[in-house]
Amino acid sequence: MWDIAAEFKAKIVFAEHRYYGASMPFGDKSLDNQHIGYLSSAQALADYAELINYLQKNALKPKYPVIAFGGSYGGMLAAYFRMKYPHVVAGAIAASAPIHMFPDMVPCEVFNRIVTSSYKVANSKCADNIKKSWSFIRSYAASANTSEWLRQNWNLCGPANSTLHADVLVEFLESMYVTMAMVNYPFASDFLMPLPAQPVKVVCQYLNETLKDKELLEGIGKVISVFTNNKKECLNYTEGDNYGNLNASGWDYQACTEMVMPICTTGKNDMFEPSPWNFTQYAEACHKKYNVYPRPNMARLEYGGAMLEAASNIVFSNGLLDPWAAGGILNSVSDSVKAVIIIDAAHHLDLMASNPSDPESVKMARQIHKDNIRKWIDEFNRRMAHRRA
Amino acid sequence: MWDIAAEFKAKIVFAEHRYYGASMPFGDKSLDNQHIGYLSSAQALADYAELINYLQKNALKPKYPVIAFGGSYGGMLAAYFRMKYPHVVAGAIAASAPIHMFPDMVPCEVFNRIVTSSYKVANSKCADNIKKSWSFIRSYAASANTSEWLRQNWNLCGPANSTLHADVLVEFLESMYVTMAMVNYPFASDFLMPLPAQPVKVVCQYLNETLKDKELLEGIGKVISVFTNNKKECLNYTEGDNYGNLNASGWDYQACTEMVMPICTTGKNDMFEPSPWNFTQYAEACHKKYNVYPRPNMARLEYGGAMLEAASNIVFSNGLLDPWAAGGILNSVSDSVKAVIIIDAAHHLDLMASNPSDPESVKMARQIHKDNIRKWIDEFNRRMAHRRA
Repeated sequence: MWDIAAEFKAKIVFAEHRYYGASMPFGDKSLDNQHIGYLSSAQALADYAELINYLQKNALKPKYPVIAFGGSYGGMLAAYFRMKYPHVVAGAIAASAPIHMFPDMVPCEVFNRIVTSSYKVANSKCADNIKKSWSFIRSYAASANTSEWLRQNWNLCGPANSTLHADVLVEFLESMYVTMAMVNYPFASDFLMPLPAQPVKVVCQYLNETLKDKELLEGIGKVISVFTNNKKECLNYTEGDNYGNLNASGWDYQACTEMVMPICTTGKNDMFEPSPWNFTQYAEACHKKYNVYPRPNMARLEYGGAMLEAASNIVFSNGLLDPWAAGGILNSVSDSVKAVIIIDAAHHLDLMASNPSDPESVKMARQIHKDNIRKWIDEFNRRMAHRRA
Repeated sequence: MWDIAAEFKAKIVFAEHRYYGASMPFGDKSLDNQHIGYLSSAQALADYAELINYLQKNALKPKYPVIAFGGSYGGMLAAYFRMKYPHVVAGAIAASAPIHMFPDMVPCEVFNRIVTSSYKVANSKCADNIKKSWSFIRSYAASANTSEWLRQNWNLCGPANSTLHADVLVEFLESMYVTMAMVNYPFASDFLMPLPAQPVKVVCQYLNETLKDKELLEGIGKVISVFTNNKKECLNYTEGDNYGNLNASGWDYQACTEMVMPICTTGKNDMFEPSPWNFTQYAEACHKKYNVYPRPNMARLEYGGAMLEAASNIVFSNGLLDPWAAGGILNSVSDSVKAVIIIDAAHHLDLMASNPSDPESVKMARQIHKDNIRKWIDEFNRRMAHRRA
């Protein structure tokens, strides 16, 4: 957006989603049970409508065309915003928006198959080594000596010397691999955490021959060092998903209400331990944490699921390196609800600032975005001219 | 709907709006301040989506095409439902839906100008007599003898012997004239209360020559008798708007939150005492009653106001005898958002059962509805066949 704003003489507005970042409606009590219920995508969309109406100076007819942009959940919101408020936004660029990532819409294992294929592509041994590593990790955690070695070699803050610890450590590592696949950009970035260019390729160099036992675990120790940017402090692996820049407490609640996205591993077509999707377990955990049960069909029913024919002026872009493409719209729905596939892109690379390392495919996608934005603005201006006439 | 359901092999479902009729989510405490907040059009639409999803047996792709029907506020909901949930309903017939009846969208006096013209058309003296009656009513209320005469002649339960009483009585009568204009059907009906065919014409026969003073008030006494179906019990005119079959406590609250519809009288182009629209007063009354302030732009912002270009498969029908046509869509927006004008119809006559007295214009409107419904169903079936292929 920063790259093209001047060309369109556009103002850029970042509207922070309620219950994220500094936008806490009840201060530090916002996430308490009695206040968190106002956190939903529908309420966020209504906020955006209010904000844009305010920026349009409460005009009965909008003065300026507005284009919604977003990546990931933000991309879902951009698309949903155009679907629900087409009178407020002239069009939406929805990058890496997994709007099909809901129960019974996409097989739960696709996500981690894409993660795995990123590591396979990086080098032929990498995914195999990772796959083999789990049993070694668990056997190292099972005895005092080896678990102490693991703690020291991996610079863990606490020992992983029980089955429970091993479970948590395995989860942390899985999340690490997923994250690096998501942000597998052609340049060094600091999106979720500081990472080098092509992080998957970088870490896979430590796993590029057939390894086992201590050697394999030493290799994975080096992978962890890359992920943690070689920092000296010990690694608190119990942070799990929360490691990094993204404070996602709000998302955690949304995942327990409307954003139920089944993700599983099979251990066959992916490099992870098998872990089936168990909605009942998931729902009970949500109930325990937030006193709510998730509504698995809510997002589909509220926003249309696979029935997008009546929508208009939305571009769904997806990079094929991105695990979230599993839930993306990969085929155009109509002349004005279009899919753009970006072969060499990870998670919403097309929304990042242009970079000398950008692959040709993402440059093309950005040009398509610009063409569509121009078209939507022209359409808006024609309609407004017609109304004034 | 009953007339055409068999032809379409259709099931008819009446979904009662939450907080109306028997659909009280908190029983007789539903309208209490701490429970009434869940009453909104957006929540009602979400209810309908849930219900239809249930009737479709929670299918990811709908099994059956669904058409939304509604008249008046129900027509607004039908249109809004198609706008917000086009994946749930294939199209909407929105009869007499005043979706433009919001602040700054339509001059507030149009509504009562249409009411007045109904009485003018019935006979040339009728509206003039009504217009003259207000000052006589007020002067009769001002003294004991004449107010007692009024009580007896009009069969009022209590005397109208103060300015305050006169205000309330005038309001009741205004509401009576409005109601009869709304339900000025060509056949006897029991929609809001039992009324003869063409009630405006019927009551205007008592006001068909230049009258004044006691004669005029006697004439209006006969109008009241028609309106109350000649019932023997005295008239509790303090019921005001609530007289009749329509229990509208829910609407009263919605009018204080999202459904702010400015209606005023000028005393010039209409037959009423002048009464300007005063939002501040209106808002304060709401605050006193429900501890909420109305949001005058909410409906426009939430549902698009005059910006309906992105919608599809909606027919807005309006009868030109209907005061609510003031806020209706009277011009087609696009090929698939169309206006149907029915010259000789009052409030959503086109949704009523066919009747030998129906004017030709309403028969034509019903045929247009059928054609559109057929088109939407065909479109739905083609799309589903395409998905299966």
